[in-house]
Amino acid sequence: MLSKSKIKLIHSLNRKKDRDESGFFLVEGIKMVEEALSSVFKIEILVCTNKFIEQHPDIQFRVKEIIESDKESIQKASLLQNPQDALAIVSQTRNIRPELNLQNELVLALDFIQDPGNLGTILRIADWFGIQTVICSENTVDVYNPKVVQASMGAVFRVKTWYTNLGDFISKAAKDQTPVYGTFLEGKNIYNEALTSNGIIVLGNEGNGISPEVVTLISKKIYIPSFSFGKGSESLNVAIATAICCSEFRRR
Amino acid sequence: MLSKSKIKLIHSLNRKKDRDESGFFLVEGIKMVEEALSSVFKIEILVCTNKFIEQHPDIQFRVKEIIESDKESIQKASLLQNPQDALAIVSQTRNIRPELNLQNELVLALDFIQDPGNLGTILRIADWFGIQTVICSENTVDVYNPKVVQASMGAVFRVKTWYTNLGDFISKAAKDQTPVYGTFLEGKNIYNEALTSNGIIVLGNEGNGISPEVVTLISKKIYIPSFSFGKGSESLNVAIATAICCSEFRRR
Repeated sequence: MLSKSKIKLIHSLNRKKDRDESGFFLVEGIKMVEEALSSVFKIEILVCTNKFIEQHPDIQFRVKEIIESDKESIQKASLLQNPQDALAIVSQTRNIRPELNLQNELVLALDFIQDPGNLGTILRIADWFGIQTVICSENTVDVYNPKVVQASMGAVFRVKTWYTNLGDFISKAAKDQTPVYGTFLEGKNIYNEALTSNGIIVLGNEGNGISPEVVTLISKKIYIPSFSFGKGSESLNVAIATAICCSEFRRR
Repeated sequence: MLSKSKIKLIHSLNRKKDRDESGFFLVEGIKMVEEALSSVFKIEILVCTNKFIEQHPDIQFRVKEIIESDKESIQKASLLQNPQDALAIVSQTRNIRPELNLQNELVLALDFIQDPGNLGTILRIADWFGIQTVICSENTVDVYNPKVVQASMGAVFRVKTWYTNLGDFISKAAKDQTPVYGTFLEGKNIYNEALTSNGIIVLGNEGNGISPEVVTLISKKIYIPSFSFGKGSESLNVAIATAICCSEFRRR
C-alpha cells in the first residue's frame, strides 16, 4: 500500500532542495529501475506491481523496502506522463572527488549546462565512449534531477560526476600540462588535429558557450566545421557537439 | 490588440489536426521569428512588441498582418514557458516531392521518429552537415509540431522534408544502385568503412529501431562502436547516432 506520505516524498524528489535534504533521488520505469538494481547504488524504496516482483525474484536482497502497488497508485506517485510498473527511491552518492589520472585519462568538463535533457544525454554519450568521469561546474543542472536520470538511460549509475569550481579544477590540471580542449568558431578543424588520448574536453552553456574565466584556460581550441551551403545553422546543440568530439577523440 | 480568436488560433497550432486544416504553424521567440523572416516561408501574422517592430523596420514588407502587442498578451498566446517579444503564424509549405539526385546527394530517411525534440535536433544536424533533404516515414512526428520547430533552431526553414511511404521510396532508390545505410549491432565499424558521398542514411524509431520492412532494403549495415569498459549503455539516442554518422560521412 502506497501511503500519502510516501507519495509526497516521491513528489518532493522533483525539487533539488528536497533531494539535497533527503539525499535521495527518483528512478522511474522498468528499464531504469533494473539499471538501478544492477548498479552499486543503495535502493531505499521500490514501488512496483506484483508482476514486477514476480519477474525479479531476487530484489528483496537488494532493496530496503518493497511496496507492492497497483498501477493506479504508481500513476499517482509518478512524475512521468506514462508511468510504468516500477519506480525506486535511490540514495545519492555523495559528491566525492574522483581519482583521476589525467596523464592517461579523458574527461568531460561541463561549464553551466542548464538543460536536464542535455546533461542526461551527455552522460549517456560519456558512457558509450568509455569516459568514466564528468566534471560539472557548480551551476550545472543537478545530476539527480529526474529528467537528467531519465535522459541518461542508466548512464547516471555508471559515469561518475563531480561538482566543483571548474576554473580551479582546470587551472590545476593545466599546470600539470594536461591538454584542455574546447570548441570555438576560431578553433582548428577537429578532423585535422592530432587529438590526445588524455585531457579535458570543456563543453559550454547552451546559450553563452564557455564562460570567460574558463576560456582563458583552454590550451587547444578546436572546431567542428559546418558543411552547410549558404546560410546554415549557427551552432550545434551541446550534446551533439559532445558526441562528435567524443567520436573524434576515440576513433583511430 | 491580440483578440481572443487570434489567441485561440495560436493555441490550436499545438494540434496536428488543426495545423493540417489551417495549413499554418507556429514559430516562437525572437531568434526563431528572425529566422522565419529571412526564410522563403510566407508569414501570415506576426505578433510582437513595439520594441521588436522598432528593431526590425522592414517587416511590414514581409508580413501579411502585424499585431503589436504587450508582453502580457503574448504570454497568454504563447505555448512556451518563457515567452519572448515575438511569435509568428507561418504558412506550411506543402509536402512536395523534392528533386533528388541520389547519384550525388546524401539524404537522411527517418523511420518513425516519434520524439519532436529528436526530429528538430536531426534537422539542425542535417543543416550543419549540408544535407538538404530529410525523407520522413508517414508515421514520423509532424515537422510543424511547435516542439520540432523550436528544437530545429531555424533548420526547419532550410532543410526540406518529405513525408512518404519509406519502404517504397527506399526500394525505388535501391533499384538504381543507391547505397542505403543503416546502423545495426552486427554492422561494420563505421570508422573503418569507405563511406560514399551519396546515398540514404536510415535512422530508426527511438525504441524499436528500423522497421522490418525497411531493414530488408538496407544494403550497407554499419555500427558505431562503443568504447565502454564493462557494462555500458546499450544504445545511443537517435539524434546522437545521426550526428556521428553525418560527421563520419562528411569528414575527409
